[in-house]
Amino acid sequence: MEVVNKYVSHKHHVDGYPSESDFELATTPLQPAPGSDEVIVKNLFLSIDPYQLNRMKRYSSSHTAITAASKIEPGQRIDAYGVGKVVASGRAELEEGDVVAGLLGWEQYTVVRPGTVLMKVDAKDLPISYYANVLGPSGLTAFAGFYDVCKPKKGEKVFISAASGSVGSLVGQYAKLSGCYVVGCAGSKQKVDLLKGKLGFDDAFNYKEEADLKSALRRYFPEGIDIYFDNVGAAMLEAAVANMNPFGRVAVCGAISEYTNAGERAAPDLIDIIYKRITLRGFLSVDYLHLHEQFSAATSDHLRRGRMIALEDVSVGIESVPTAFVGLFRGDNVGKKLVRVGELEG
Amino acid sequence: MEVVNKYVSHKHHVDGYPSESDFELATTPLQPAPGSDEVIVKNLFLSIDPYQLNRMKRYSSSHTAITAASKIEPGQRIDAYGVGKVVASGRAELEEGDVVAGLLGWEQYTVVRPGTVLMKVDAKDLPISYYANVLGPSGLTAFAGFYDVCKPKKGEKVFISAASGSVGSLVGQYAKLSGCYVVGCAGSKQKVDLLKGKLGFDDAFNYKEEADLKSALRRYFPEGIDIYFDNVGAAMLEAAVANMNPFGRVAVCGAISEYTNAGERAAPDLIDIIYKRITLRGFLSVDYLHLHEQFSAATSDHLRRGRMIALEDVSVGIESVPTAFVGLFRGDNVGKKLVRVGELEG
Repeated sequence: MEVVNKYVSHKHHVDGYPSESDFELATTPLQPAPGSDEVIVKNLFLSIDPYQLNRMKRYSSSHTAITAASKIEPGQRIDAYGVGKVVASGRAELEEGDVVAGLLGWEQYTVVRPGTVLMKVDAKDLPISYYANVLGPSGLTAFAGFYDVCKPKKGEKVFISAASGSVGSLVGQYAKLSGCYVVGCAGSKQKVDLLKGKLGFDDAFNYKEEADLKSALRRYFPEGIDIYFDNVGAAMLEAAVANMNPFGRVAVCGAISEYTNAGERAAPDLIDIIYKRITLRGFLSVDYLHLHEQFSAATSDHLRRGRMIALEDVSVGIESVPTAFVGLFRGDNVGKKLVRVGELEG
Repeated sequence: MEVVNKYVSHKHHVDGYPSESDFELATTPLQPAPGSDEVIVKNLFLSIDPYQLNRMKRYSSSHTAITAASKIEPGQRIDAYGVGKVVASGRAELEEGDVVAGLLGWEQYTVVRPGTVLMKVDAKDLPISYYANVLGPSGLTAFAGFYDVCKPKKGEKVFISAASGSVGSLVGQYAKLSGCYVVGCAGSKQKVDLLKGKLGFDDAFNYKEEADLKSALRRYFPEGIDIYFDNVGAAMLEAAVANMNPFGRVAVCGAISEYTNAGERAAPDLIDIIYKRITLRGFLSVDYLHLHEQFSAATSDHLRRGRMIALEDVSVGIESVPTAFVGLFRGDNVGKKLVRVGELEG
C-alpha cells in the first residue's frame, strides 16, 4: 500500500507580505522504508516561524549566512522545526514509536536524512508540543538572547517588542524570574491583557494606539530602558534606543516589520549609541547549542512548578499551514504558532 | 600688572555645519593667583575635536550623557583637552614650570578647578604635543576601541573610515601591529597616499570617488570585513554592515557625517545584523581610564621605536581655533588637528 505525503510549498518567490495564494498543497508518494541512517517521522506539531519568509525571497542577505536560513526555491520542500513520531528507523538509537524533535518540514511525513539531529523527547509530564515551542528553538532563542546577549542584572528595566509572540512571551517571563522590571508591547488589547494578567509583566501597551512611540516609551520607562529585546526592528528600535540608559543593551532577535518591507529600516541615532555606550547585537540560537542542557533543565523545571507558562496557538491539519504562516505577519497568533499535522496515537 | 586671557566661544547655538562666523575671540582678565587646589596653566597645545560640535547644539542626546559631553551655552568658555605649562599652582604636587595634560580650554590660560585631573608630562624624548594627541584621549580612544571593543584576532580584515584622522590613523597602526589586513578610506588623494605610504595600510581609497560604497567595499574586501571602526556613520556604516562577515564587530566611535546633519542617519540592514550575528557598540574613552597605563606605555614604546607615527596638523595662535575647528567638518585636517596657543619657553 502506497502512503501519500501531503506537503505545503510556495509557488513563487515571496518578496512582500505573504498571502495564502502564494502557497499550494501537493502530494508525493512516501518512501516505503528508511535508508541507512535515515528515519521516517510522522509529523505531529510544526513550529511556524516568521524567519521562514526570508528563505522564500528572491534575495535576502540571510540566504548565505547559515544552513538553517538557506534559500528555499519555489516548489521545494520547506524544512521546519517540529515534533514527530518515528514510524520507521534506519538509525540504531531510534525505534518505531519514539517521539523526536528536530528539523522536520511542512509536510505530514519527513524522511530525515543522515546527519540531521533528532532529539528524543522523553519527559512524560510535559505536553509534547512544548518541544516545538518553549523547549525548542523559540525557547533557546529567548534563553540565550536574554541571558547571554542582554546580560541582565536584577532590577534592570527590560522592554520587549512582539511580547506576546513565541520568543517575546518567554523573554518576559525569564526577565521577571531574574528580578527585572518588564514592559512589553503587542498589537491588540487581548494580547496586552494577557501580558499583564497571565504572564505577569509589570506593564504592557498596544503599539497601534500610540501615535509617538518615543513618548510612549518615555511614559512606560520614566527611568529609562536598560535592555531592549527587539523582535520587530524599524521605528520601535529607534524609539527604544532614544529611551535607553547608559550601557544599555539591545538584543536584535528579529525584525518582523522589515521582513515584509525591504524599504522599512531602523535608523537609530548613532549619537545616542555612542554617548550612551549602547550595544546592539544580532544573534541566532544555533550558536547556543552548548547552552541547550542548561536551558532545557531550567525551563522544564520552571514549567513544572508553574513559574513559567507556554502560550500555544494551535491550528490543525497540514492544509492550515499557509494561513498559520501568513497570520504571523497580520499578528493573528497569540503566543507560539503551531500546526498539529498528525496525532500521536494511530 | 593685569594679564589678559584671550578665549574663543560660540556666539549662538550651532546646529548645522559650523562656520568661522559662529565664533568670536574675546578677552577677560586672568585671575592673578590660584585658589586652594587650583592651578593656572598657560596652554600650549589644544586638541581640536569634532565631538565638541554636539556640545554647541541647542539639543543633542549627548548633552545628558556624561560631563565631558555636556552642553556649552553661547558665550561660555569651551573646555577642551590640551597640554600646558603650570604658571602658578595651589596644588602641592604641581609646581611652576611643570608640563601637564588634561582638560584645559579654548583659551590662552586656564584656571584649572579643584577635582580636575592634571597629568604630569615627564617624557623628555617625545614631543609634548603628543600628549594632546597620540598619548591623549585620541590615542586612548583608538587603543580601547580597537582592542576592547573590536577584540581583533591576527589575520582579521579591518576597515576604518576617516582613516587619516586623529583616531583612525592610530587604529590602523594598532591593527597592522596586530597582524590584521587594514583598509582605510579618506576624502582626498593626499590622504589616501599617506595611508598607503607613511602609515602602512594595506590599501586605502577616496570615498568621494566611489559612486557605490557597497560595491567599493566588496572590491577592497573580497573576503568580507571582520571589524569596522566607524568614525563617520551614515551611508558608510550601511555599506560596511552589508559587507561584514559572520560575527563581525563594529566599534561606533564617531558619526561625523551625522553631527552636522540631524537628518542623516545610518539604517543598516537588521537582517544582516541578525543572520551575521553582528555587534555594534558605542563607546567613549572615559570608560577606559583603567587601561591608561597600559595604553600609554605600549604606545610610547611604539613611537620611540618608530613602529607608530603620530600625524599632526598644527595651526598657530588662539585666533586660529575657529578655522581649525570648522576645517574638521570640511576634511581640511590631515591627522590630528592641534592648535599651538602658546610657547613652552617664555
